Amino acid sequence: MKTKMTEAFRKYEGGLFSEVTKADVSVSISSLEKEGIDLLAWADPFYPDPSTPPHVIEAMVKAIKEGGANHYTHPIGNEELRIRISKKLKEYNNIDANPHRNIMITPGSDSGLYFAMLPFISSGDEVMIPDPSYPNNFQNVEIMGGKVVPVPLKEEYHYQININDFEDRLTSRTKMIVLTNPNNPTTTVFTRRSLEALAQFAIENDLIVIVDQAFEFPVFDGREMVTLASLEGMWERTVTVFSTSKGMGLSGFRVAYIVAEDHIMDTYYGSAVSVVGATNTFSQIGAIAAFDNDEYTKEMEASFLRRRDMVCKILGGIPGVHVEKPESGFLSWVNISKLGSGEFITDYLKRNAKVIVNSGGHYGEQGKGYIRIVQGALADEERLENALRRIGNALIELADNKGITNF
Amino acid sequence: MKTKMTEAFRKYEGGLFSEVTKADVSVSISSLEKEGIDLLAWADPFYPDPSTPPHVIEAMVKAIKEGGANHYTHPIGNEELRIRISKKLKEYNNIDANPHRNIMITPGSDSGLYFAMLPFISSGDEVMIPDPSYPNNFQNVEIMGGKVVPVPLKEEYHYQININDFEDRLTSRTKMIVLTNPNNPTTTVFTRRSLEALAQFAIENDLIVIVDQAFEFPVFDGREMVTLASLEGMWERTVTVFSTSKGMGLSGFRVAYIVAEDHIMDTYYGSAVSVVGATNTFSQIGAIAAFDNDEYTKEMEASFLRRRDMVCKILGGIPGVHVEKPESGFLSWVNISKLGSGEFITDYLKRNAKVIVNSGGHYGEQGKGYIRIVQGALADEERLENALRRIGNALIELADNKGITNF
Ligand SMILES: Cc1ncc(COP(=O)(O)O)c(C=O)c1O
Ligand SMILES: Cc1ncc(COP(=O)(O)O)c(C=O)c1O
Repeated sequence: MKTKMTEAFRKYEGGLFSEVTKADVSVSISSLEKEGIDLLAWADPFYPDPSTPPHVIEAMVKAIKEGGANHYTHPIGNEELRIRISKKLKEYNNIDANPHRNIMITPGSDSGLYFAMLPFISSGDEVMIPDPSYPNNFQNVEIMGGKVVPVPLKEEYHYQININDFEDRLTSRTKMIVLTNPNNPTTTVFTRRSLEALAQFAIENDLIVIVDQAFEFPVFDGREMVTLASLEGMWERTVTVFSTSKGMGLSGFRVAYIVAEDHIMDTYYGSAVSVVGATNTFSQIGAIAAFDNDEYTKEMEASFLRRRDMVCKILGGIPGVHVEKPESGFLSWVNISKLGSGEFITDYLKRNAKVIVNSGGHYGEQGKGYIRIVQGALADEERLENALRRIGNALIELADNKGITNF
Repeated sequence: MKTKMTEAFRKYEGGLFSEVTKADVSVSISSLEKEGIDLLAWADPFYPDPSTPPHVIEAMVKAIKEGGANHYTHPIGNEELRIRISKKLKEYNNIDANPHRNIMITPGSDSGLYFAMLPFISSGDEVMIPDPSYPNNFQNVEIMGGKVVPVPLKEEYHYQININDFEDRLTSRTKMIVLTNPNNPTTTVFTRRSLEALAQFAIENDLIVIVDQAFEFPVFDGREMVTLASLEGMWERTVTVFSTSKGMGLSGFRVAYIVAEDHIMDTYYGSAVSVVGATNTFSQIGAIAAFDNDEYTKEMEASFLRRRDMVCKILGGIPGVHVEKPESGFLSWVNISKLGSGEFITDYLKRNAKVIVNSGGHYGEQGKGYIRIVQGALADEERLENALRRIGNALIELADNKGITNF
């Protein structure tokens, strides 16, 4: 029956017939724990340790006990949650969104991102995607029959946008740009200057831009987090996808939201039930509580900062290793190209440091000499530090064996 | 920006610029209650009244209080739940599914159905869909660029499959059949004979069959519920989509599951994160409890039976109205063609009986002279009876005004 599938789908393997491991997929946490292996590869804060905020627990427990949470909410999402989100959009994103016309709740931003792109992509449409980038961005375009046009982000520019690299790749079929801001895996917070250049390019060439802001907070060192849709002329051509999974720490809740102007949203509302379906009823109640009182995210931010500094301190200065100081969130993007490929190092670290990290090649061509470390994993910072030290020591040993003495 | 969308998407309106009302969408329950209107139009048992089984509440409250439910589960679903489902598949569906290779949990069966079809459909592929049928079946094919080939189900055959009607519509582009069994809106439980004929047709013509068993229980009057994938030669070409939303009453949980043979599942596993994303973590724990102890569904079944008989008693014999006795679940499919179109009657009942039901035209061409009533709504059977009586009286009055005296 596989021969009856589209070409795009035929190449996706789920691991039933191979040893392929997808980024972020196919690990069983209990079997890893038995082997004493730490998983620093899932972008899920404090995974796998309990870390639901108490007031969110309370709100959900109440809703569940009342017994009505077994029913559907409106397919576009709980009205109160949409109203609460519209306030947040005004305060944090400088966006004036009508909760009844511009916001749709989705069961996570993975399906949200897919759905946001879907109406626009026909066979052969070209979609520009910064490389490295979240793997689903590439996969989604392929599934829809579009053509991925990777645009390299370069370490020497601190992974900011170089608009010439976009202009060089423009064709008459270019239809869309998909941007993750801040970027996963590089943690880059795109500067106002980067985004203004991108906006001008999008407007001049009449392009749609999908922006994934799953990692929009926290950003570090006083950086400005600019929402592209708030720039002049961009509201009408930008669809922004947000999530409660990362900075709010609610990955398992599966609550995300899409923000777009009325005409695009009208189509989304009209096809929401068919493609994504309604979002979990009690999760949305938990999300309301989380938005209403988001003090706890400050503690998360402080912990993420400590963890960032831990990574920089432990891995900084190791021969053959270069860590760009993370600009946001809880990931690190580490250049290990002098020591080996991302695949090789990932494998090496699993065996020698008992830590699983992500191989950079999952995030695009540009990522081949990199690994991604999720220092936001594990609630216990000592345990995390221990895992990072094991990584550091294993890399020092490798550099030593290879006779590498500087970066 | 709408001009940049695919043709299929451009026609879907969400109601922001029109008065279009989609089946099952865009009603606010609180505003209806203020107007004294009962909603018998959402396929959600006992909606909107509290009806989560106590032991399911207990399991979820425990999981949430433990605090770890904020984390992702494995994208293909909680392992324990998959194991529990494999037992159910053996006991109830006569299917031998490996929980590690043949089952995938999805956040509801709406996205599950979409996802199940997606890898197979390219532009121009023809998909046979019984008419009337669940509206998403048509919409999904259109969104994917396929061609919908409706195959009429006829009241005179009790909506069973007449394989000649499929054979007449076969072309070299026919790729797939999408079957809802039992059917929504007609409640038809397809007989072994219907399904054997369909299986033979699918095998002879090398077709994929997607079967939606959201309504697989309860079925009434000792009917046999046959799972197509269990018939000889069908496992390899059938993808079955199940849900906990209907017979198990857990709509708001968003837990459904796809069952397929290894090769198809390998592709699903490989693209799951990108298209559907993981399923809610605590809902899956609630679903395990529901599967472990499903005694409560017997009470639901008894209530559905009483409700069915209520509909037949109240609407049976009204001039110009014909109710086929529902074969399963909690819906009724009522022929009102002598009194007016489904659109007209739906409107008329909203104004004159203060009840919202679904217009049959949403379910396909064949449905134009019908309405769908969800007698499974409302926990209080007296309130339901009252609503049904208002429908009955309003229809009697209409028949009277029109001078119609028999069916
Ligand atoms: C950049 C980015 N976007 C979106 C997602 C999906 O998050 P969710 O579906 O939990 O909202 C992830 C998850 O890793 C991510 O890294
Ligand atoms: C026939 C049928 N299939 C699937 C669904 C979707 O159910 P869910 O997404 O809640 O699993 C519905 C909901 O009304 C339905 O009627």
